[in-house]
Amino acid sequence: MNLSDIYKPVQKDLKKVEQSLEEITDAEFSLLAQLLAYTLKTGGKRVRPALTLLSGKFYIYEPTLLVPMAAAIELLHTATLVHDDIVDNSPVRRGKPTVSRAWGGNSALLLGDYLFAKAGSLVAGTGNLRAIKLFSQTLMTISAGELKQTGITFDIAKVREYYFAWIGAKTACLFSTSTESGAILSQAPEEAIQAIKDYGHNLGMAFQIVDDVLDFVGEEDELGKPVGSDLREGTLTLPTILFAESYPEDELTKNVIGKKDAEGVSQAVERISNSQVIADCLAMASEFCLRARQAAEKLPDNSARKSLIDLAEYIVKRQK
Amino acid sequence: MNLSDIYKPVQKDLKKVEQSLEEITDAEFSLLAQLLAYTLKTGGKRVRPALTLLSGKFYIYEPTLLVPMAAAIELLHTATLVHDDIVDNSPVRRGKPTVSRAWGGNSALLLGDYLFAKAGSLVAGTGNLRAIKLFSQTLMTISAGELKQTGITFDIAKVREYYFAWIGAKTACLFSTSTESGAILSQAPEEAIQAIKDYGHNLGMAFQIVDDVLDFVGEEDELGKPVGSDLREGTLTLPTILFAESYPEDELTKNVIGKKDAEGVSQAVERISNSQVIADCLAMASEFCLRARQAAEKLPDNSARKSLIDLAEYIVKRQK
Repeated sequence: MNLSDIYKPVQKDLKKVEQSLEEITDAEFSLLAQLLAYTLKTGGKRVRPALTLLSGKFYIYEPTLLVPMAAAIELLHTATLVHDDIVDNSPVRRGKPTVSRAWGGNSALLLGDYLFAKAGSLVAGTGNLRAIKLFSQTLMTISAGELKQTGITFDIAKVREYYFAWIGAKTACLFSTSTESGAILSQAPEEAIQAIKDYGHNLGMAFQIVDDVLDFVGEEDELGKPVGSDLREGTLTLPTILFAESYPEDELTKNVIGKKDAEGVSQAVERISNSQVIADCLAMASEFCLRARQAAEKLPDNSARKSLIDLAEYIVKRQK
Repeated sequence: MNLSDIYKPVQKDLKKVEQSLEEITDAEFSLLAQLLAYTLKTGGKRVRPALTLLSGKFYIYEPTLLVPMAAAIELLHTATLVHDDIVDNSPVRRGKPTVSRAWGGNSALLLGDYLFAKAGSLVAGTGNLRAIKLFSQTLMTISAGELKQTGITFDIAKVREYYFAWIGAKTACLFSTSTESGAILSQAPEEAIQAIKDYGHNLGMAFQIVDDVLDFVGEEDELGKPVGSDLREGTLTLPTILFAESYPEDELTKNVIGKKDAEGVSQAVERISNSQVIADCLAMASEFCLRARQAAEKLPDNSARKSLIDLAEYIVKRQK
């Protein structure tokens, strides 16, 4: 099972999403065009726009609304990545220097703003007020979530709860908006909208946990960034949190949290990667995927539902 | 003539805008609440929200739509200031350290994103698709305009044209959106929407030119920031541009443009302030105000129209 099999029911319209992103790079002046091309032509997985299209397949499938919505979701996602890379001072994303490293933080900041606006403009074009409101609420949740995260000081008793709230705001919220907006724009009944929103939320939680695990156990070539990047940037994710909870007195726990000394971090990554916590994290991700699957099973049985269920399985098994 | 006289026809609802901004500072966690209070309780002039309300006074005045729209305009304006202060590395705004100086660039970046989203959410709440589309288009224009500005290298033959394009995107665009959205939400006929949009654009151009003049000739106490801040931050505005055009061979022109040595900048500010270019700039601003007045005169004659015309006169005479 690979992504192109999973995307099959919406393959044609996913290409239209790609075209629509391509058209956006035709900007009025060359710096903007260059920045847009750099961030949008990435060969990313396009999971979120695929989710919007698949979620539109259960009632009245309307590509003229779903394609711009799906493109908007990918633009919003890209905008948050561009801004996150400034905040985290990340050097590399998807195998290339981040925009903030290559063009400086100011260009990255303004590019992100432009992408937010362009996304908002595409959603406004659907003419669907519920989708429009959902979309602006999503950006509020994402930015407030990141801001909350910057203000948190480490507390072992609360760190797991904070982590789940944080990934809920930064990842699961956009996943559930991807699916919910597809359902809204296809005139799904309220219970179906709820089911597909739950699906998106749980899938997003699983997706982020697996991302955070891959940051420890993945291959640099596949990840497009060095292994252990999160810890190197001082970001505590589930593997580190579970390790700290399991071995609170371990020197590694005491030394690594909140510090950025390169050698210490490399050793920590090595030890965490080879510990039981990786399996524990993946078990948690599987649990979220199970909930996603259960939510999807409330939807009408068709090829899109099969894709959503397969995607929930793929998410945990993926290598990048 | 002072601002509170000019705002009289919408005084009551401008207070509601203030209340609505106040309510926004009641955020879910303290860092966000603190940042919102810091940026929204500023005692700013609130010109833009007043324009939205006044522009809604010609046809069906509907405060339940106009008040949130006006608040959204002020939020969008605040968001762009917060992001601009990162880009320009500005130390002070309205007599206080900028958010980026007081809390760091990352918090400022995320706060700006949150403000954009909150603004979008208020506009979405009006349920008016035309206003919603206008709003996202405005953010695109503003961010693209700033980005274009960062990519420009100094060229004496083009600098004036670039300046007008830049202030058109960063200031006049939001002024015209302030007025146009008020007209749209009051169901104004198309010609009235055009007239009030023209009014806003021209007023915005004048407003920014006067702002740029005040940066040279204003009082630090009134400005809330040091005199000559623009030049100190390497930003070339109309007074410097006219000076450079008038005296291309002057040592000052050659030495100041693109450089930031503190003493040289202070001398430049002094010389530019005492030169003819200040009067030339104000004459240009007056010309834009005249066009604004002519546009306003196409509207039905009422107290709001008088306020718009008075505001166009006030804009040029103001000291801060």
